[in-house]
Amino acid sequence: MSFDSILIIGAGLIGSSIARAAKSKAGVFTVWVADRSADVVETVERLGFADGVAEGPAHHFAAKADLVILCVPPAKIAEVAAGILPVMKPGAVLSDVGSTKSAMIKAIRPHLRDDVSVIPGHPIAGTEFSGPEAGFAELFENRWCILTPLDDAHPDVARLSAFWQALGSNVELMDPDRHDTVLATTSHVPHLIAYTLVGTAVDMETVTGDEVVKFSASGFRDFTRIAASDPVMWRDVFLSNREATLDVVERFIEDLTALKRAIRWSDGETLLDHFAKTRDIRRRIVESGQDEPNFGRDD
Amino acid sequence: MSFDSILIIGAGLIGSSIARAAKSKAGVFTVWVADRSADVVETVERLGFADGVAEGPAHHFAAKADLVILCVPPAKIAEVAAGILPVMKPGAVLSDVGSTKSAMIKAIRPHLRDDVSVIPGHPIAGTEFSGPEAGFAELFENRWCILTPLDDAHPDVARLSAFWQALGSNVELMDPDRHDTVLATTSHVPHLIAYTLVGTAVDMETVTGDEVVKFSASGFRDFTRIAASDPVMWRDVFLSNREATLDVVERFIEDLTALKRAIRWSDGETLLDHFAKTRDIRRRIVESGQDEPNFGRDD
Repeated sequence: MSFDSILIIGAGLIGSSIARAAKSKAGVFTVWVADRSADVVETVERLGFADGVAEGPAHHFAAKADLVILCVPPAKIAEVAAGILPVMKPGAVLSDVGSTKSAMIKAIRPHLRDDVSVIPGHPIAGTEFSGPEAGFAELFENRWCILTPLDDAHPDVARLSAFWQALGSNVELMDPDRHDTVLATTSHVPHLIAYTLVGTAVDMETVTGDEVVKFSASGFRDFTRIAASDPVMWRDVFLSNREATLDVVERFIEDLTALKRAIRWSDGETLLDHFAKTRDIRRRIVESGQDEPNFGRDD
Repeated sequence: MSFDSILIIGAGLIGSSIARAAKSKAGVFTVWVADRSADVVETVERLGFADGVAEGPAHHFAAKADLVILCVPPAKIAEVAAGILPVMKPGAVLSDVGSTKSAMIKAIRPHLRDDVSVIPGHPIAGTEFSGPEAGFAELFENRWCILTPLDDAHPDVARLSAFWQALGSNVELMDPDRHDTVLATTSHVPHLIAYTLVGTAVDMETVTGDEVVKFSASGFRDFTRIAASDPVMWRDVFLSNREATLDVVERFIEDLTALKRAIRWSDGETLLDHFAKTRDIRRRIVESGQDEPNFGRDD
């Protein structure tokens, strides 16, 4: 059921974490890694978690691998998939880890083959750090991995699900459009808002940068962590999940404008009603094990 | 230099934490606590961190205390101050822990006495939990406490600064208006935005509440923690810091609208420029010791 050999294309945080975990956790015998950057290739060789490393498209590895996972930036996935699909071996599986799914599926449709299963995926895990040195084998433990298969019933879906479960993840199958809307709400728009707020604070000429840093506890600090995520990746996420992102942002601006109006007119009841209802969802997240009550912090 | 006796009015998270720390860390001999809630009074008696507990205004304690700190909700501070000032003993100090300063100072001005120093304060510390059982003596360690004295040169300012330093805080003196603008940027608006976003997500009829909880990692989860803060306190913060909050919210909406437009028109350069500049401030917060690189989390 498991994969004997895998090829990871793109050895950033996610790719290098999968490569690190594949042998010890998922019973993979051979792990190959490819990256278009010579620096990254050199780092991966030095770190020693791969059986073979190649700079560039790595067609010689792709021709042998049972599973190829594309861990390149979202904007490159369709292009790399189109290049790699023709050389993959019959019966192999092609997956990816991109944060958006519908646009990528549309782009690769013309390149599909009957004898290679394409099963797009999205592990919901990460840190604000990037690059091969930031990865670690435990990154996916107790996290969700969403798969958006083109054909739910294909036996390779169960096989890839088992791979992610072996890495410690809970696997969920989902329609690609629904995936994009859910993630716009729970991840993409929160990131956009964090980037915006941190930028607004930096630009405030009445508040110097030093004071923003000094008094960042209690609220702002959490936003800066989110806003320190990889800029190139997030640009690509927003551009490839445009419709769902814009839809959620518009609702958010409407809601913020209503609260702003309540503050202007001293409408304490509207504020209180709104603030009280958001507490419940926090309780459910803590209860579901998605977070600790105060995740080890004391402020 | 230190205070022999203190009275804490309002035994919530902040008040009960000061009461817990005063003897062991700041050389206080007698700690009195007052609260208008019979339940809270009973809890404080049971927890045993006070030498005397009173329900209501506690004028008998106020007549003896060297330092009175008002830890009641922001909207109640001016009213409680006006009631307690006439019974305080000559030479005593009155302070508070409210999150906004200008409106409160304006409201208590008519009640000032020449022989009692009023030194408004704001410890920047807290958790999303409330009530006397949530407090702990270490809450203020390595946190900032901002004092906004009416007279910077008064010797009691140094005395109160030493009290907060003994509790582990770094003390900063600031003009009240500047305090309100800095805090609107670094704390109040981040909270308003977190409340708004969590509410928007809950209302999205295309995303069920279960999915918001399930896939809350990577962004949204941090917002839910912030949005779980005490609703009554935050209503009062926004209403008492109206002008500065509205000013920052308006700039934020302008900036978000510009990024939304960039997404709509696929203007990746604008997005990337914006996202790249916010990374620097995170680095400075980590370097300043205000936060750990990843505060012990792995996603």
